[in-house]
Amino acid sequence: MTVDLRSDTVTKPTPGMLEAMWSAKVGDDVFGEDETINQLEEKAAAMFGMEAGIFCPSGTMTNQIAIKCFTQPLDELIADQTAHVYRYEGGGIAFNSGVSTRLLNGYRGIITAEMIEPEINAENIHYPHTSLVVLENTVNKGGGSCYTLNDIEPIAQLCQSSDLKLHLDGARIFNALAHTSDKAVDYGTYFDGISVCLSKGLGAPVGSVLLADKATIKYARRIRKVMGGGMRQAGFLAAAAIYALDHHVERLKIDHAHARILGDELGKLSWVSNILPVETNIVLFDTVEPAKAILAKLAEKGIKASDTDKHRIRFVTHLDVHADQVEYLVEVLKQL
Amino acid sequence: MTVDLRSDTVTKPTPGMLEAMWSAKVGDDVFGEDETINQLEEKAAAMFGMEAGIFCPSGTMTNQIAIKCFTQPLDELIADQTAHVYRYEGGGIAFNSGVSTRLLNGYRGIITAEMIEPEINAENIHYPHTSLVVLENTVNKGGGSCYTLNDIEPIAQLCQSSDLKLHLDGARIFNALAHTSDKAVDYGTYFDGISVCLSKGLGAPVGSVLLADKATIKYARRIRKVMGGGMRQAGFLAAAAIYALDHHVERLKIDHAHARILGDELGKLSWVSNILPVETNIVLFDTVEPAKAILAKLAEKGIKASDTDKHRIRFVTHLDVHADQVEYLVEVLKQL
Amino acid sequence: MTVDLRSDTVTKPTPGMLEAMWSAKVGDDVFGEDETINQLEEKAAAMFGMEAGIFCPSGTMTNQIAIKCFTQPLDELIADQTAHVYRYEGGGIAFNSGVSTRLLNGYRGIITAEMIEPEINAENIHYPHTSLVVLENTVNKGGGSCYTLNDIEPIAQLCQSSDLKLHLDGARIFNALAHTSDKAVDYGTYFDGISVCLSKGLGAPVGSVLLADKATIKYARRIRKVMGGGMRQAGFLAAAAIYALDHHVERLKIDHAHARILGDELGKLSWVSNILPVETNIVLFDTVEPAKAILAKLAEKGIKASDTDKHRIRFVTHLDVHADQVEYLVEVLKQL
Amino acid sequence: MTVDLRSDTVTKPTPGMLEAMWSAKVGDDVFGEDETINQLEEKAAAMFGMEAGIFCPSGTMTNQIAIKCFTQPLDELIADQTAHVYRYEGGGIAFNSGVSTRLLNGYRGIITAEMIEPEINAENIHYPHTSLVVLENTVNKGGGSCYTLNDIEPIAQLCQSSDLKLHLDGARIFNALAHTSDKAVDYGTYFDGISVCLSKGLGAPVGSVLLADKATIKYARRIRKVMGGGMRQAGFLAAAAIYALDHHVERLKIDHAHARILGDELGKLSWVSNILPVETNIVLFDTVEPAKAILAKLAEKGIKASDTDKHRIRFVTHLDVHADQVEYLVEVLKQL
Repeated sequence: MTVDLRSDTVTKPTPGMLEAMWSAKVGDDVFGEDETINQLEEKAAAMFGMEAGIFCPSGTMTNQIAIKCFTQPLDELIADQTAHVYRYEGGGIAFNSGVSTRLLNGYRGIITAEMIEPEINAENIHYPHTSLVVLENTVNKGGGSCYTLNDIEPIAQLCQSSDLKLHLDGARIFNALAHTSDKAVDYGTYFDGISVCLSKGLGAPVGSVLLADKATIKYARRIRKVMGGGMRQAGFLAAAAIYALDHHVERLKIDHAHARILGDELGKLSWVSNILPVETNIVLFDTVEPAKAILAKLAEKGIKASDTDKHRIRFVTHLDVHADQVEYLVEVLKQL
Repeated sequence: MTVDLRSDTVTKPTPGMLEAMWSAKVGDDVFGEDETINQLEEKAAAMFGMEAGIFCPSGTMTNQIAIKCFTQPLDELIADQTAHVYRYEGGGIAFNSGVSTRLLNGYRGIITAEMIEPEINAENIHYPHTSLVVLENTVNKGGGSCYTLNDIEPIAQLCQSSDLKLHLDGARIFNALAHTSDKAVDYGTYFDGISVCLSKGLGAPVGSVLLADKATIKYARRIRKVMGGGMRQAGFLAAAAIYALDHHVERLKIDHAHARILGDELGKLSWVSNILPVETNIVLFDTVEPAKAILAKLAEKGIKASDTDKHRIRFVTHLDVHADQVEYLVEVLKQL
Repeated sequence: MTVDLRSDTVTKPTPGMLEAMWSAKVGDDVFGEDETINQLEEKAAAMFGMEAGIFCPSGTMTNQIAIKCFTQPLDELIADQTAHVYRYEGGGIAFNSGVSTRLLNGYRGIITAEMIEPEINAENIHYPHTSLVVLENTVNKGGGSCYTLNDIEPIAQLCQSSDLKLHLDGARIFNALAHTSDKAVDYGTYFDGISVCLSKGLGAPVGSVLLADKATIKYARRIRKVMGGGMRQAGFLAAAAIYALDHHVERLKIDHAHARILGDELGKLSWVSNILPVETNIVLFDTVEPAKAILAKLAEKGIKASDTDKHRIRFVTHLDVHADQVEYLVEVLKQL
Repeated sequence: MTVDLRSDTVTKPTPGMLEAMWSAKVGDDVFGEDETINQLEEKAAAMFGMEAGIFCPSGTMTNQIAIKCFTQPLDELIADQTAHVYRYEGGGIAFNSGVSTRLLNGYRGIITAEMIEPEINAENIHYPHTSLVVLENTVNKGGGSCYTLNDIEPIAQLCQSSDLKLHLDGARIFNALAHTSDKAVDYGTYFDGISVCLSKGLGAPVGSVLLADKATIKYARRIRKVMGGGMRQAGFLAAAAIYALDHHVERLKIDHAHARILGDELGKLSWVSNILPVETNIVLFDTVEPAKAILAKLAEKGIKASDTDKHRIRFVTHLDVHADQVEYLVEVLKQL
């Protein structure tokens, strides 16, 4: 048996999703004529209470476009030091937007209005102009930790009173929604931009949608073009995403349950020195031995996972990790 | 009957192509595990005599990545004034690369070593550093005009002796190959980078491949990431591209024959004041009446085309324009 | 006897100017406390009918700051193909601002509203957004050719109706004013930004002033800081500039008379094949022999000049070229 | 009596310095003909054991040029979180160079090889490429804290073995040299670039010099041009700088002694809650009352200083703060 826990991006389309792709009506999206893409953009915008959306080849692109939309060169954005936009997008904040970064030291990547406020630069030509706050929900490097809308509200208020834009990197927003009692549609009240990834837990093969108001999305189309993200008959991909929104949101709770099982079992093992609380579909734990040694042993048993530090391993559950695989994995862990 | 001559990008996958897509083996390309994408990249590189390739969501992205690979900020590139990279990529040369542009006034977009040489800046801190020449083959704005490799050879020699890189925007390179007696594999001898579009005449739904040597492609993967072009299970799209390379290259001659028929018929019409020589699948012609008026009349008959100037119309033939549609179009044109 | 006609930038301060410099009251301009700089900025702004000014180390900086103030990345500016901002500022439009350039083919660098209008890009995500027109008065590469305000008025009207900003590269604006009957104060009516050079014909050792409205200058201070143009006790330089504005404006007519004498004499010489009409302090002429050969002969006689092309030489008159030097030069030219 | 302790940038030229300026031989530095600037560049390079130098209008420009010389877009630099290049240069790292920043939490701004090493990014397309470390000596925000060359050596070794460039922001390098037993000439062994400020403790009115090897300085001239830092007859400023290097280096010990006196006295006062150890010419101390309230009381007595946080005040001693002023200040502080 093989289990791939490296990332929830490794999933492959289910038969139902493939069928949806197969029967998609496509057109040239550069002319705005791909009706499946149009439908996806509208559906996602409506779900999150936003005016409009734009489909892009990756979450990095939706994030980077949002940052460009909400800043100018000479500006600075505020985010947690573990933020994907800062750590894993190739230095795009500086490269694509000429924007500086002020990083906070949040708890498992979760930051608060109290932490943000003192880091907003005063008006002074020596300082870049603070114009944007970026939150990530769930936080990848935080081990799938979640903001609730209650956590977000004071941040949104601070942004409004300080004339800052607020963007959500929603790479795993549906995992956060599954864990909290929040509703997607309420997110639109708080954020200027929301990046929704369709190819992680949802299982679509490719793509993310950026949601915002109409004027921002109009400008985003210009930025997507110059960054090379304008695709032609990409409705095949959009069809998979629509299918995922319709069929794969509810089932995220299964992934969360699997992650909790793994967390509980890891907690009983002597070779595990620490486990971060498991909230969603990510399990981060520290090992006494070097992580690479553990990964090698797991690989021998057909289990793939990744290390995020010298003694830290990450397991990510997703729709291609089934109950029997979890059971098998627990056995392997016990015998390691 | 409807005919869409606006662009060769509007084509939809054929049944054979769709079948290839649905049977594709896919994986997470960010991990390098999508074997269909890997196969496409290798196949395209081999076809053009280059070491390696990278699949991207658009030809704008492959061009913009190539320009970034071959320049540094403070540099300048040389291209024809009609070049797609300058005119239709949203200002990306300056935006993505911080690079200046020196434009030449070629004949139908075709430039020569003699034209390029005097425009290479001398070493002087007042001038940007000339580091790149970009050719387009066929030239879109030139009405599908072609370079032969004989035309290209002296340019490549000048670039080599002047320490300039040479990039090919091959949005319609297969149309050029169909028109000339040149072989794709010989292109690798002359160019440092080649952008091959798969979603124009070839009829794949999405994508382009950038070809270059291994070191350049390694760096290109970094740039693709920061620009947001890294996709996950995009092998579905790559499968369509492979199918197109196997089945849709030879048939481009049909599109060229269709274009010639249209050109010949337009030449007989009193409301047409000028036709550019038809070499490939693009027909550019000037109208006595405003172009918009002619387009409106054509639209009434189910025919879509585009205007490229106040009195200039463009027809583009492609695999969704069949012989009977050409016949119908000729009748309509005669009666206009 | 030696004569340096390479540029009007080579002048050295006169005794009167030196005295003004040494008696200047200075302070830390980063704190806004250099009263001589403040006085210069206000004086220059008032002269040209603008609200505010900012002193910078060079005309390249005032131009580049203006371009950054009046554009955003993804924008395009329109200028003549010989424009200093495009040709001689190191590729700064792309480097500093990420902005594309649309170049016109003016007569001796002079462009018109009729030439500009068709080059304003339509709203389309494929095109950069046209947002700025830059004029140069006098035109260096045009041989000191001048715009009158009558020439400028329709351009300003077009900019206003098309929502474009209009910037003046006034490297030699005082030469233009000396030649036309226009008044400096009227320039403020037409331009959003004016760059006034103090170290060319005016003879100050260092510096230019950018003039605009208060909000633009406030933003310009931010850009000057990030580009490293914020100086401390630079009032010594500003004092020279104030002295130049008070004492060296009227005398530019002498330089123009000298240039006309040179032009007239060159017109009689068989080894000169062409002379551009002499309007101000620049004489551009073509030589039968290679320009470098002529320059070498002149150098033997103590005369320095520069070549701007293989057969084109430039003479620039200025306050360190006196009547007896002009006389001497005429004799040398006759005997060459 | 008035005392200005806001910064060592507020100093005005002494009579001797003014005389040196007055008698300077100047020329057009854009042509490389200002012999005083040439002399300054050579003198500073020789002092620090570097090959070549370039004079610029500010330390921000020398730092920003160095960062551009030593990086490419997509790169990342490492510096302390208080670094001037990150905090006080307007966001120039991202704006001018498109470069990301990895910040360390040094002790009073002093970082070590042990802190740097784990922050060098592994080769991975998700991460920007680490290419530069920037040190500041003395550290402004650290209260004038110093590196010795012994501290620097392991950092330089790490940079060499990790293929990173090492740049010194030497805004107050002469203060560091006065405090340690290090020699300026040995700095050249460790750094790829050194920015030496002439208008802080040294008392010259304007300017900094960037030192590096010849190839880097050649490229730096190109960057200075595009950023607008090329000045004409700036030898007047260079003459002041040469005078400062000859006459104002030794006397920095006086400023340090003054700072120590202030530190000692502040330590005895009940309204002062904390003082950072005084190493050079900066005294940072925390106040029980809000800093603004203290500053207001000082202002009434003719004393200017600045606050760097809500309860933190900064005193900077310099050549315009004499012994009697220090005495007066001590009296005022006692009676506050």
